[in-house]
Amino acid sequence: MPDAFNLHPRLAADTEPVTRLALCRVLLMKDARVPWLILVPERADVTELHRLAPVEQALLMEEIAAASRVLERLYRPDKLNVGALGNQVPQLHVHVIGRYRSDAAWPGPIWGSGPAVPYAEDALQPELERLRAAFAGG
Amino acid sequence: MPDAFNLHPRLAADTEPVTRLALCRVLLMKDARVPWLILVPERADVTELHRLAPVEQALLMEEIAAASRVLERLYRPDKLNVGALGNQVPQLHVHVIGRYRSDAAWPGPIWGSGPAVPYAEDALQPELERLRAAFAGG
Repeated sequence: MPDAFNLHPRLAADTEPVTRLALCRVLLMKDARVPWLILVPERADVTELHRLAPVEQALLMEEIAAASRVLERLYRPDKLNVGALGNQVPQLHVHVIGRYRSDAAWPGPIWGSGPAVPYAEDALQPELERLRAAFAGG
Repeated sequence: MPDAFNLHPRLAADTEPVTRLALCRVLLMKDARVPWLILVPERADVTELHRLAPVEQALLMEEIAAASRVLERLYRPDKLNVGALGNQVPQLHVHVIGRYRSDAAWPGPIWGSGPAVPYAEDALQPELERLRAAFAGG
């Protein structure tokens, strides 16, 4: 029997849940500097993209594309950054981030570029609702 | 007629060609700190993953997996980092990088983490030959 899937505690602490797709949980990073989604394939103990089954790899790419379309539609970023690093959190997860020529880390990567800026208390729930509606709209 | 594909001059300057796969050119970053491949889909004027045709997206994922397996086999990294950023070079390209707990940038991203260290003059060609043999071996 495969091991049960549990979200890594650090991912759980740094994000809010948005929705679930066929393969991945979609999370919103609690960092208001940029629109920042994280996709976590619901597969226990997988740490590298290429260790997913081939059909899951293809599905992950489709879900990365879906998340990219949602970010473009809602936030009109200048560029998308997509990355699977996992140097600090071993559970496989893929960042899909909207970047702006005006953001604090541009043109460098946002990872490791300074502390997260929390969403205003009354801004987080509406943001999650917008994202859920956009994912539900396909 | 689609525009002709040309490698971006900055990618050409920073890398050596390794091989060509069905979709991508495979390049070796001239940075001896870590084993660092770049995959460039041979599609002119595409800047975002999700703007590739769906069949090309799936192929790109297969080629990322192939590059990951080559790096694991030859270099035994502790972790792979995969990323499509493009904040500085707009032409779509995907980094597939072997990382080590002992490398200079760990656990941060290697992008933007300091200057490249050139390969020794007599080390680059043998490295390219090893990589070509590994890709040819599947």
